[in-house]
Amino acid sequence: MNINHILVTGRLYLELEPLLRGRTDKQFRFIQESEVNTADYEWADAFVGFRPAAQFRPEGLKWIHALGAGVDAFLQHPAWNPNVLLTRTIGAFGQQISEYCLSCILADAQHRDTFARQQQMKSWGPVPPRSLRGQRAVILGTGTIGQEVARSLEFFGMEVTGVSRGGSRKAHFVRNVTMEASGEYLETADWVINTLPLTKETESVVNEAFFARMKQCGFINVGRGASVCPNALLNAVDQGQVRVAVLDVFEEEPLPVHSPLWSHAGIRITPHISAVTGPEEAARDFLKVLEGVEQGELSAEHKVNLQLGY
Amino acid sequence: MNINHILVTGRLYLELEPLLRGRTDKQFRFIQESEVNTADYEWADAFVGFRPAAQFRPEGLKWIHALGAGVDAFLQHPAWNPNVLLTRTIGAFGQQISEYCLSCILADAQHRDTFARQQQMKSWGPVPPRSLRGQRAVILGTGTIGQEVARSLEFFGMEVTGVSRGGSRKAHFVRNVTMEASGEYLETADWVINTLPLTKETESVVNEAFFARMKQCGFINVGRGASVCPNALLNAVDQGQVRVAVLDVFEEEPLPVHSPLWSHAGIRITPHISAVTGPEEAARDFLKVLEGVEQGELSAEHKVNLQLGY
Repeated sequence: MNINHILVTGRLYLELEPLLRGRTDKQFRFIQESEVNTADYEWADAFVGFRPAAQFRPEGLKWIHALGAGVDAFLQHPAWNPNVLLTRTIGAFGQQISEYCLSCILADAQHRDTFARQQQMKSWGPVPPRSLRGQRAVILGTGTIGQEVARSLEFFGMEVTGVSRGGSRKAHFVRNVTMEASGEYLETADWVINTLPLTKETESVVNEAFFARMKQCGFINVGRGASVCPNALLNAVDQGQVRVAVLDVFEEEPLPVHSPLWSHAGIRITPHISAVTGPEEAARDFLKVLEGVEQGELSAEHKVNLQLGY
Repeated sequence: MNINHILVTGRLYLELEPLLRGRTDKQFRFIQESEVNTADYEWADAFVGFRPAAQFRPEGLKWIHALGAGVDAFLQHPAWNPNVLLTRTIGAFGQQISEYCLSCILADAQHRDTFARQQQMKSWGPVPPRSLRGQRAVILGTGTIGQEVARSLEFFGMEVTGVSRGGSRKAHFVRNVTMEASGEYLETADWVINTLPLTKETESVVNEAFFARMKQCGFINVGRGASVCPNALLNAVDQGQVRVAVLDVFEEEPLPVHSPLWSHAGIRITPHISAVTGPEEAARDFLKVLEGVEQGELSAEHKVNLQLGY
């Protein structure tokens, strides 16, 4: 595929300019998301950004490169053009999300909040931490990110079950099952971690029936907000199926002030920071994918399967 | 060595009884620390506990087995008898302390306290976490525990320098140096972790001159309280050499209510929980060491070198 004009938008557009100019003979436009206009889309062969920009018109584009791992915002856009090649950034999201998840699991296991409260009262009250060794996790999604999370939980001796569409065998999991077969593992899980991309199949997949299998379990959402029914989650926390929920992604972001999630006991909120694309890795990954696009040799990780939606 | 009468005291004495009786032909007495009397010491060949018990009289004993990894309380007791064989528990302290340290490092890297405050205000303020990859740690002490901590930091791509008496090469460290040669690594460290046992050499070893090399560094003490000068630490936090200090061990435990450490900004206190001997591992390790004592085949990990003090 021949690419000449590349439109770069999104949060990193200014930082990407010095990292991309001069690294290739392509012509670039670096434009703020809200400022992109029809003429820019007509000029461009390729669009680079986290999500569709203003006046999004992909019909003349050959290629769209997502600066994040999630591509749902492109695929669900009303003007989406299925003839466009769609690629995404892989970067170091696996490690970043592993660190996020371990931070949650260890804070809980090490009674971090309890000891912080005790310190305020100058109170010495030992409670033995619960080692990760032997704890059980279920990870929804066994792609690059799910596998990397599994690898770090496995390192500490956790028993990790992977759940995916096909249930095919992947490294670092003690077993891989389909969503339909996951029930018995949810019942004994200490932690359930959602890393699923948002597709038609995964929308609201973590629902009342799903939570009903869990018992005093920790739940982490680093996938997409719309995969989880918020009301089902609130009920599950109230009824003790979920002991603590840590949410980094939401159907609407920023999470609206009126959301009951903000102040619900047992729910912790972080502002979508579990995997943040840095400018250097965005540039590196983009240049690698650009080369693959031109030579017709794209890795399966980077190239989005439009049927599957990830 | 021939052992017949074993006196078991300390926090776990009741839980150890069913785990030890019937597992060997030895005779046991299981007695609360405060209730041990002279007759018990005269009866016993061996003493098992976390520290000297009431009316401690080791002169008639052949063997003392510490239920923790630290043995300073025995060696520093006025009635200490250097002719007694001294052994200690190894258990899973390495993993436990690794989990404790990682919990501290990740909570900091993931801005856990910031996001908790923001949640209380229903405020969405993304701050990118700082990945552990490339962060630098210096670990004081390169024994079983220090090595295991290094192994888990290395897993996340941290660059770990080990500091020990001899500076001899150990796995999972990028380099091993002596205390004298550690200065330049303290200067660029993101985290300094003390895992040293308490001996004459390590008392107050983390002092003003030591902290003076650090720059906006995190400090974790999971070794012994008396290795760190509390006033030097308070000054180092005030002057920004130490950005955050997490302390699990103290010269006096429980930490007295009047200690300025409790309420100093930048200091986090936990009540000596980073390595807790559980009854099962205490029993398992004790029975293993008992076998070694009787057969004269003790591993270097378990047998304390009285000259070195660990």
